[in-house]
Amino acid sequence: MGAGFKAITSGTVTSPQGFLAGAVEASIKSPDKLDLAILCSEKPCVAAGVFTTNLIQSAPVILSKKHLKDQKAQAIVVNSGCANACTGDSGMADAIEMAKLAADKLGLSTKNVLVASTGVIGVPLPMDQIRDGIRRIVPTKDGGHKLARAIMTTDTFAKEIAVAVESKMGRFAIGGVAKGAGMIHPNMATLLCFLTTDATVDAHFLQSVLRRAVANSFNMVTIDGDTSPSDTAVILANGAAGTATIKQSNGELFRKALDEVCLYLAKSIARDGEGATKLIEVAVEGALKESQARLAARTIASSPLFKAAMYGNDPNWGRIVAALGRSGAKVNEKKLEVYLNGVCVMKEGSPVHFGEQEMRNGLADKEVSVKLCLHLGRGEAVAWGCDLSEEYVTINSAYTS
Amino acid sequence: MGAGFKAITSGTVTSPQGFLAGAVEASIKSPDKLDLAILCSEKPCVAAGVFTTNLIQSAPVILSKKHLKDQKAQAIVVNSGCANACTGDSGMADAIEMAKLAADKLGLSTKNVLVASTGVIGVPLPMDQIRDGIRRIVPTKDGGHKLARAIMTTDTFAKEIAVAVESKMGRFAIGGVAKGAGMIHPNMATLLCFLTTDATVDAHFLQSVLRRAVANSFNMVTIDGDTSPSDTAVILANGAAGTATIKQSNGELFRKALDEVCLYLAKSIARDGEGATKLIEVAVEGALKESQARLAARTIASSPLFKAAMYGNDPNWGRIVAALGRSGAKVNEKKLEVYLNGVCVMKEGSPVHFGEQEMRNGLADKEVSVKLCLHLGRGEAVAWGCDLSEEYVTINSAYTS
Repeated sequence: MGAGFKAITSGTVTSPQGFLAGAVEASIKSPDKLDLAILCSEKPCVAAGVFTTNLIQSAPVILSKKHLKDQKAQAIVVNSGCANACTGDSGMADAIEMAKLAADKLGLSTKNVLVASTGVIGVPLPMDQIRDGIRRIVPTKDGGHKLARAIMTTDTFAKEIAVAVESKMGRFAIGGVAKGAGMIHPNMATLLCFLTTDATVDAHFLQSVLRRAVANSFNMVTIDGDTSPSDTAVILANGAAGTATIKQSNGELFRKALDEVCLYLAKSIARDGEGATKLIEVAVEGALKESQARLAARTIASSPLFKAAMYGNDPNWGRIVAALGRSGAKVNEKKLEVYLNGVCVMKEGSPVHFGEQEMRNGLADKEVSVKLCLHLGRGEAVAWGCDLSEEYVTINSAYTS
Repeated sequence: MGAGFKAITSGTVTSPQGFLAGAVEASIKSPDKLDLAILCSEKPCVAAGVFTTNLIQSAPVILSKKHLKDQKAQAIVVNSGCANACTGDSGMADAIEMAKLAADKLGLSTKNVLVASTGVIGVPLPMDQIRDGIRRIVPTKDGGHKLARAIMTTDTFAKEIAVAVESKMGRFAIGGVAKGAGMIHPNMATLLCFLTTDATVDAHFLQSVLRRAVANSFNMVTIDGDTSPSDTAVILANGAAGTATIKQSNGELFRKALDEVCLYLAKSIARDGEGATKLIEVAVEGALKESQARLAARTIASSPLFKAAMYGNDPNWGRIVAALGRSGAKVNEKKLEVYLNGVCVMKEGSPVHFGEQEMRNGLADKEVSVKLCLHLGRGEAVAWGCDLSEEYVTINSAYTS
């Protein structure tokens, strides 16, 4: 962790003061799993969000964007098992009703409630179960972990973290929870990520630091190249810690802590990609521009051939170079250097001999690193992904069944 | 087949008059498989080619582009098992030597020989085996099928065809051979495709019809989204049939026959994608522009989630719509219609009920069709792909081992 903040043991999205969460089994995902949850704050919050750039957007995404226009929100109601996407006007009516049910339960105005749904596309929400479920949810101070479990779909572990920050403006905490696993190639946000803080934060600053944190974390994660219509990242700041207002001029530490929280969650998503056995980090240096470095890193991290090779611990680096060449980033083969787990495998356009068995042993680790030096400029970026295993196919060939 | 031409039974790339081919086992791919071949014409040819747009290009691609500048060629020497890509200056020297060895053997000038290599990237060609192998090749009139087998890597069947054409300019034939299987998401050409004709063809016309035929066939095929540094499609026209010169003003039938040959080969590649169990056709209609229709069709056909669902006969059409939404093509959800095997599953942004068991039975066929009507304009395009099975991963996690 960076200077000035540290991880809270077993921290969750309800670790910051004044946040509550609860979840129930509503038989949306399967009969005996948590799948409907509420995250709320005791006090009104300044809020910010970034959403999918997919032109097909789920009803909850459209509604939450509308509810966030005034940069205020106090609760999020979320379900897994059904995305409420491609469901037409009735899908929008269902999303509005979800927000209203949660608002009525919590004594809030409907426009201060955000909605998120994740799961199968093109299927209507089972509203009877949603109505009954929302009635049964009991938000509590220690409910963060339950919420983390309730938003999981094919995730194999809950993704959550909280950090305690000591700043000149006072002490505060930031909590976060995310879900991932499949249809992960975010573009403005990941599938679902909820962040909380008890700091008092200026609304414009909050939006700008969230956008930046997401750009360097969730937007650099790829599992399968498929961007979801449900991508949502939202942060709520309730001021319960009584800090001075954090804004552009004094917000450096807040920004760093938020970056760290998002990075942790994003890497957890990559590590837990559907069927993944390892986390892959792809760093690109010396690109002509940062945008080209991002493009190259993401393209390599999402190449099915490269990912399959990594699953087999196969140092077939030609696939890295082939993916770079089609990425759209400018590249000069004669200047290119490629490193696999720190070992140079290609330099100035020619192969470099390496110990194959030793390399294979290294690639069998839980984390693999790739670095490319393009020697064309100063653009750099890091992307995270995972390997491609038979299990990814098994999971995704029978998702709706 | 279209009017004016018909398929030649067991037709190959040597079915047109005056073309010879031969292949040998040179232990490049494995000890007992054909992997080195020569295709040549008894007479000089007018030639045209289209090559990969990957910025990393193999030495054979760079050399063949140079040799094609005068729009003339008389032979192609090709190996599988090693791509001779990312091999630096020595790789280029090896490609030049391959061309020279073939030229000397055939009594041609080196600049009239094209070179193609397919296989692992970043590994030098085993030149002793290449030298010995080229010496042993005996090109014959019926060698086309041997060449088709020699260029296979993970292909499970040879892809070849020939058609006989009756035109006002005289009778002629067009033959073609291709390889595919992996790293297939061509952009200007597929991995390897060689076409021959005994018609007399104007060089500029030949280049333009080849470019167009490739755009609507090979460039609309996708197996895994990875564009290869070796993509090459070349056509040789030797005039042996003694036709009048075929050119823009009289070339409509030639163009149609060439389109048909390329389409047949491209669909064969999709059908034989690594681990594929079925061919998937994605047709997009009513896009704002043709370029957007092409983008949408290719994006859907290459979505790992959609491909995995098709493998499982799972009518999870939400993945089609999600891929469309991220494709970059303009889309209005409220106008969108989606058909799976001819059955409407979404209309005007809402799901349409269908018989799930019947749909699953239909999806179990060897060919599956998807159609999207965007209702925004007149752009249309068709792309071909295949499903994603566990076997794709198995094949690609151990390719270099």
